[in-house]
Amino acid sequence: MRLRAGCDITLQAPHDAPMVAMLRPRSGDAQWIVSERYEFDPLIRAVEYVDVFGNLCQRIVAPAGNFRITTEVVIEVDSSIAVSPGAEPTPPQSLPAETLQFLLPSRYCPSDTFDKLARDAVADATPGYDQAEAIRAWIQEHIQYRYGVSDGSTSAADTLRDGAGVCRDFSHVGISMCRALRIPARMVVGYLYRLDPMDLHAWFEAFVGGRWYTFDATQKEPRGGRITIAYGRDAADVALITEFAALETTSMKVWVETAETG
Amino acid sequence: MRLRAGCDITLQAPHDAPMVAMLRPRSGDAQWIVSERYEFDPLIRAVEYVDVFGNLCQRIVAPAGNFRITTEVVIEVDSSIAVSPGAEPTPPQSLPAETLQFLLPSRYCPSDTFDKLARDAVADATPGYDQAEAIRAWIQEHIQYRYGVSDGSTSAADTLRDGAGVCRDFSHVGISMCRALRIPARMVVGYLYRLDPMDLHAWFEAFVGGRWYTFDATQKEPRGGRITIAYGRDAADVALITEFAALETTSMKVWVETAETG
Amino acid sequence: MRLRAGCDITLQAPHDAPMVAMLRPRSGDAQWIVSERYEFDPLIRAVEYVDVFGNLCQRIVAPAGNFRITTEVVIEVDSSIAVSPGAEPTPPQSLPAETLQFLLPSRYCPSDTFDKLARDAVADATPGYDQAEAIRAWIQEHIQYRYGVSDGSTSAADTLRDGAGVCRDFSHVGISMCRALRIPARMVVGYLYRLDPMDLHAWFEAFVGGRWYTFDATQKEPRGGRITIAYGRDAADVALITEFAALETTSMKVWVETAETG
Amino acid sequence: MRLRAGCDITLQAPHDAPMVAMLRPRSGDAQWIVSERYEFDPLIRAVEYVDVFGNLCQRIVAPAGNFRITTEVVIEVDSSIAVSPGAEPTPPQSLPAETLQFLLPSRYCPSDTFDKLARDAVADATPGYDQAEAIRAWIQEHIQYRYGVSDGSTSAADTLRDGAGVCRDFSHVGISMCRALRIPARMVVGYLYRLDPMDLHAWFEAFVGGRWYTFDATQKEPRGGRITIAYGRDAADVALITEFAALETTSMKVWVETAETG
Repeated sequence: MRLRAGCDITLQAPHDAPMVAMLRPRSGDAQWIVSERYEFDPLIRAVEYVDVFGNLCQRIVAPAGNFRITTEVVIEVDSSIAVSPGAEPTPPQSLPAETLQFLLPSRYCPSDTFDKLARDAVADATPGYDQAEAIRAWIQEHIQYRYGVSDGSTSAADTLRDGAGVCRDFSHVGISMCRALRIPARMVVGYLYRLDPMDLHAWFEAFVGGRWYTFDATQKEPRGGRITIAYGRDAADVALITEFAALETTSMKVWVETAETG
Repeated sequence: MRLRAGCDITLQAPHDAPMVAMLRPRSGDAQWIVSERYEFDPLIRAVEYVDVFGNLCQRIVAPAGNFRITTEVVIEVDSSIAVSPGAEPTPPQSLPAETLQFLLPSRYCPSDTFDKLARDAVADATPGYDQAEAIRAWIQEHIQYRYGVSDGSTSAADTLRDGAGVCRDFSHVGISMCRALRIPARMVVGYLYRLDPMDLHAWFEAFVGGRWYTFDATQKEPRGGRITIAYGRDAADVALITEFAALETTSMKVWVETAETG
Repeated sequence: MRLRAGCDITLQAPHDAPMVAMLRPRSGDAQWIVSERYEFDPLIRAVEYVDVFGNLCQRIVAPAGNFRITTEVVIEVDSSIAVSPGAEPTPPQSLPAETLQFLLPSRYCPSDTFDKLARDAVADATPGYDQAEAIRAWIQEHIQYRYGVSDGSTSAADTLRDGAGVCRDFSHVGISMCRALRIPARMVVGYLYRLDPMDLHAWFEAFVGGRWYTFDATQKEPRGGRITIAYGRDAADVALITEFAALETTSMKVWVETAETG
Repeated sequence: MRLRAGCDITLQAPHDAPMVAMLRPRSGDAQWIVSERYEFDPLIRAVEYVDVFGNLCQRIVAPAGNFRITTEVVIEVDSSIAVSPGAEPTPPQSLPAETLQFLLPSRYCPSDTFDKLARDAVADATPGYDQAEAIRAWIQEHIQYRYGVSDGSTSAADTLRDGAGVCRDFSHVGISMCRALRIPARMVVGYLYRLDPMDLHAWFEAFVGGRWYTFDATQKEPRGGRITIAYGRDAADVALITEFAALETTSMKVWVETAETG
């Protein structure tokens, strides 16, 4: 399906504020960028680089005062996501080298402390895809979706204790549990068609049966219409904006709608 | 300055034809993509990857019959190019590792056979930038710009013998001579504002004084308004279209114009 | 100076145990491998890959029963380390892209929670090198070197609370405080000549004044004779052995001595 | 099988001569370095980096006068090479992205001019492995192994005209013909056990049936006991020594023998 998605962010800085933005999806295996725009107001100079996860990162110095970033993409994506009940785990010795880093604990996913919980949650699910799906279902059942409980320093362990959080937190718990079972898992941030209320979104992917599969513990059913902006080990790697000086987001608007083809 | 540049290519294939296109500029140090579109007609699925030079490459299978690719970019670029008479050569032991491959001979730049010519052409120019500039001037004086002399298999050695060629050939001669003097040199393909007649263009860059500088032997004066699409060792690496089955380009239109800011 | 360093590790596994080892230093800017050996007993097949930090990683399946790895390297390293009091911080917008990931919080370095502590610790030290050095000194003064307090899941926040730890923990605190001040900092594991008692060691590097500098909060004086085995964001990335099944280290011996040249 | 292989090279330079050496094999899927040494006489400082093909490259400045490099490796390799008659070509659209560059023409492999020859040589061989093998056999039949015919600037086209060459030239012809048939092919330099007379050696690999296979047109039978030092598009990329100033090789000794295990 073809989607038009974008966001409009206004920032306010007392002084010039160096920052890195991650707001540009990249074409890959699963999504194709038909058109795209990325504008600054006031107009400033930006430099782009690719980080170790393959994400396009925009380095800018936000000028003192108000600064606005508007990005929009028209993109072809799958209208449904692949599911594969019964898919077996990939044995550690057969994992592609680039997936191994997604087995390690990270800032918000201290998977080294999730052993027991993960085992209990998946109970007697068949190893592999079904475990990841059991984890997703466990989170949906045990963690409440609620704003205001978590913030930027909340880890998966904190979310377990609180029993509530938002998409970011749900993903961190899912990733931590997968890694505890030695299933590579990574964070995805992006857009989801028909998300309600509309916002930027986060979910996770688990590597089983020789490929990455999408899991979203905030949703009752597997849903397509997803646009990946960035991958990472957890939220630390995929912040839409990483600032290196005082910088406040004063407004943010996000949209995702269907676009006509051709 | 802000430019709007694009091309519209129609291809014709008797059977489905796998191909790689290189038609998507990337934001970097020297150019910033404000907006972009990339469309196929009929609509097909594409996969994008980054090659060893950092170029974005689009893998597609052109369907049998007529197939059309339209790309357009609105981009911020410099309106003039940096020049630096007197800039010294970077000693081999201080060259950044990633520049070393641009010292090696390549398909169309057999620099291992250009020693004497390069030395004669630069005569007593100061080593470094002035040598690269002397090479550019030598080419402009000694090689005629003329269509129909060269084709896709013409090397810099062939161009010397023929005494004529087009932008691709001028670049190959410049690169071969620079490398013969142990100055890293690479091929650039892209757009040039006010090129006449308008077409996709090629020029070269030489690494002296610790950075890459632009040289274009087809132009009398240093000119900005350049959009880089791809870098490579020579034309073999930066073909706009590399086909793996019969495929004919039946029409191609290129445009570059100024765009309004904001 | 030329050093001979190595380790001899015996592992015991109830079943075949897939694992990744990181026991092979690499030649780079600051160290040159003169000779090296890396042996398995019983002899098994290994595969090597390079991770995102540039570390050489050995993938093996440790056979059930006892398994022994012996590695040794003869290497040229600096006998003293560079110090640079007064070196200025590199402004965020000028940091090399590859250093940016070392500003982000990580599993054992939750730098997003170290703001106040870092500011207090450096007090009125000049921004840059002197701050990193003040952090090193602060750790030496405030954290006790003591075995048995920390384990593999201890973070820098835990170490602060405990007031004690080992080289790994000292490094995590140093890294967290540097990052809180927006100084890129990374973990190093390796060998240190004359370390007492001899063991594998960990320290940290901070990026100031345009380059990486070495800091070791376990030592009273700057000391050279260091061999880097691996770099990472924290201990999660640079485990000598990451196992994916039950696997116990039953013995480990480490040595570092001077070697004769030529 | 376990091999001990090495070389001892003496160079002579009138002045300090910057150079890059490629004399250090790397452990990978098919070979495991048990031990290794790499010495300079006189002792100098070297820096190592990894090139775009994944080869370890040593940057040094050879001091004026005599300079000696001695390298030796003890390594586990396969005693026979994989053969796979009937293996099908990998369709272009399914080729791993990193193999695509090995379809392009290069300095010594002007594959864009080998179309007809390649087609004639493989005649009615089944597409895929059998074509690559037919090419290998064709070269063995039509090109004479003879020293003194070729030098460092000899291309595959030159070798065809001369009807004679050495291992480097045989490889270039094989690579050019494979690429003309749209089979990715790359140059390998390394050691071959029982090569007679002993020397460093070159062969080629072709990508068919989803993996790289080894072909050596200088040998009557498929032979194992191969140690890869470096991969490249052709000899330009894998020179053992690339010098950037006057530098003469005054002697070179190469050895490969079996080593005892454990």
